[in-house]
Amino acid sequence: MPHDYLTDVPDDVRERAGRVRLVAFDVDGTLTDGRLWYGEGGREIKLFHAHDGLGIKRLHAHGIEVAFITARVSHALSERARDLGITHVYQGQDNKRASLTELLDALGLKAEQAAFVGDDLPDLAPMRMAGLAVAVANAHPWIVEHAHWQTRRRGGEGAAREVCDLILAIQDKSDTEREHWL
Amino acid sequence: MPHDYLTDVPDDVRERAGRVRLVAFDVDGTLTDGRLWYGEGGREIKLFHAHDGLGIKRLHAHGIEVAFITARVSHALSERARDLGITHVYQGQDNKRASLTELLDALGLKAEQAAFVGDDLPDLAPMRMAGLAVAVANAHPWIVEHAHWQTRRRGGEGAAREVCDLILAIQDKSDTEREHWL
Amino acid sequence: MPHDYLTDVPDDVRERAGRVRLVAFDVDGTLTDGRLWYGEGGREIKLFHAHDGLGIKRLHAHGIEVAFITARVSHALSERARDLGITHVYQGQDNKRASLTELLDALGLKAEQAAFVGDDLPDLAPMRMAGLAVAVANAHPWIVEHAHWQTRRRGGEGAAREVCDLILAIQDKSDTEREHWL
Amino acid sequence: MPHDYLTDVPDDVRERAGRVRLVAFDVDGTLTDGRLWYGEGGREIKLFHAHDGLGIKRLHAHGIEVAFITARVSHALSERARDLGITHVYQGQDNKRASLTELLDALGLKAEQAAFVGDDLPDLAPMRMAGLAVAVANAHPWIVEHAHWQTRRRGGEGAAREVCDLILAIQDKSDTEREHWL
Repeated sequence: MPHDYLTDVPDDVRERAGRVRLVAFDVDGTLTDGRLWYGEGGREIKLFHAHDGLGIKRLHAHGIEVAFITARVSHALSERARDLGITHVYQGQDNKRASLTELLDALGLKAEQAAFVGDDLPDLAPMRMAGLAVAVANAHPWIVEHAHWQTRRRGGEGAAREVCDLILAIQDKSDTEREHWL
Repeated sequence: MPHDYLTDVPDDVRERAGRVRLVAFDVDGTLTDGRLWYGEGGREIKLFHAHDGLGIKRLHAHGIEVAFITARVSHALSERARDLGITHVYQGQDNKRASLTELLDALGLKAEQAAFVGDDLPDLAPMRMAGLAVAVANAHPWIVEHAHWQTRRRGGEGAAREVCDLILAIQDKSDTEREHWL
Repeated sequence: MPHDYLTDVPDDVRERAGRVRLVAFDVDGTLTDGRLWYGEGGREIKLFHAHDGLGIKRLHAHGIEVAFITARVSHALSERARDLGITHVYQGQDNKRASLTELLDALGLKAEQAAFVGDDLPDLAPMRMAGLAVAVANAHPWIVEHAHWQTRRRGGEGAAREVCDLILAIQDKSDTEREHWL
Repeated sequence: MPHDYLTDVPDDVRERAGRVRLVAFDVDGTLTDGRLWYGEGGREIKLFHAHDGLGIKRLHAHGIEVAFITARVSHALSERARDLGITHVYQGQDNKRASLTELLDALGLKAEQAAFVGDDLPDLAPMRMAGLAVAVANAHPWIVEHAHWQTRRRGGEGAAREVCDLILAIQDKSDTEREHWL
């Protein structure tokens, strides 16, 4: 594991990451830096990161399911999901634990096979339910407290990519991934 | 208080925060990073932070009044206030102390029951009047000098959330808040 | 001088700042963070900082002339200048030294009475001519080498404000300025 | 070499940089900070840096070829290339090594005369082929591992400028360049 953020991954996190078949991401503050645009047409704008996009596509290519679960509703997220080939998109969800439960049922997976990546209090419930709870670098302190692992990069700046890299590395897919790009 | 920015809060600040019934926020540089958009339709755009929004909504839910007081006028702020359910919005205010005084009178509160959060010289007068004066991390040095407390995060990046968390923690509302999200 | 960035100002810089009657600012990288917007209507957008705007207005109020000198042309800068009451705006200037010379002649000032604030090589010639040459924190190394003083903040994040504060402080206008806001 | 990022350049990198006749840049994450805009008309927006633009123009003026090679397609990049006078623009390239090979053939250059600057896995193949492989500060760890040199600045914040400065300095063009601006 040649990623600096993957050195010294605790055994407990390795075991949890090894079981993951679904990674669910919060959106604002996790896939973005948490800034919300207001004003003339600005409401719809979200900035996603190229590194996260590549990680999500590769995770998906290796057979791991990916979902986006958010309390807000935006056309921007729908477009992003379409570009990445992600079909599990839950928008306008006040109860993210319910969304995650619904998705797990639909996929025939157990909670311990899910990872949830978040940054603020509405993510607390699905994180406590998921087998692997990840907090981004800029997460609220209560979220960090409940996370099994915390990324080094902030939301919208590559935090999601670290989660993708972690899971591929732990599940021994890094070598085939590396060959894919050489 | 498990927030890293709430450890070692001085006794004087704890007493001041304990009396707060109204938190008034400056906008540019405090709820945003202070960047002003110029150009084709860009004038109206402001970027607020998701963490601040959640903190403000929860503070409000616990019965603390919230106000926005700014020298500028923008549709973006009006929209943001509406989304957060904040009705005390003072735009185009050259004299922020007068705005704060007017609001305190309307609410039947004393100055010592108000907190004012700011970042630059027009915030100096209302900060000197308020029971709790807070400077954001990126505030002008003269503002820091007059503040009782300074946030660790910069304006537009979660500074307002720290103030909300401080007041809820000092007023013993953190436990019920935490239960709300678990 | 209670500004952290104004402690330990060398005697040479103090003498130079004491003579300044005109402050000329480069725009991209100095009043902005140097990012240039490309795309659908985006070309016109510039982000200026609220702290810089206040400093420039107050410097002007104390009788110091202010100018913007830039190689580019944008409606955004014209709007910003109008909002700040700045009339000396030189856009589309390939030779910034010539622009500065022209302005000094028009104002009846000597080069030693001018400060020039910049960040990259086209600013080198006017900086070498001006009595006080200032490089912003993120300036190119060759610019830093030729500067009498360097700001702690980056362009577009308050660098210009530090220059305004420096000149007002050295010219003994800080006390009246402070009274203005208390 | 008065640039702080050009002190202690290893001999191997100096030799590689001395042979460079073409510098090919990836775009998102290398010439930008990697953020992708989604939403109302936002898809087309890219933010390039003024420092990078100047470096690229000067590198070009000294007879070094410059190319942009990217997997995405945007009008924003076409506009940027036009402004900088760059005609070698490869958009929508899934195989960047093939694009670089094609360009080298067209220019009659060898791979050891090319530099490739990138930040993520699709840049790995052209970087391994090029005589000088450069990773930006925020590059993915696997990219850093395969780079001969890494910039101190992040993509979109002056990383490309450091590469331009490196090549001009190593090829003894810094003195004439400096005279150009004094």
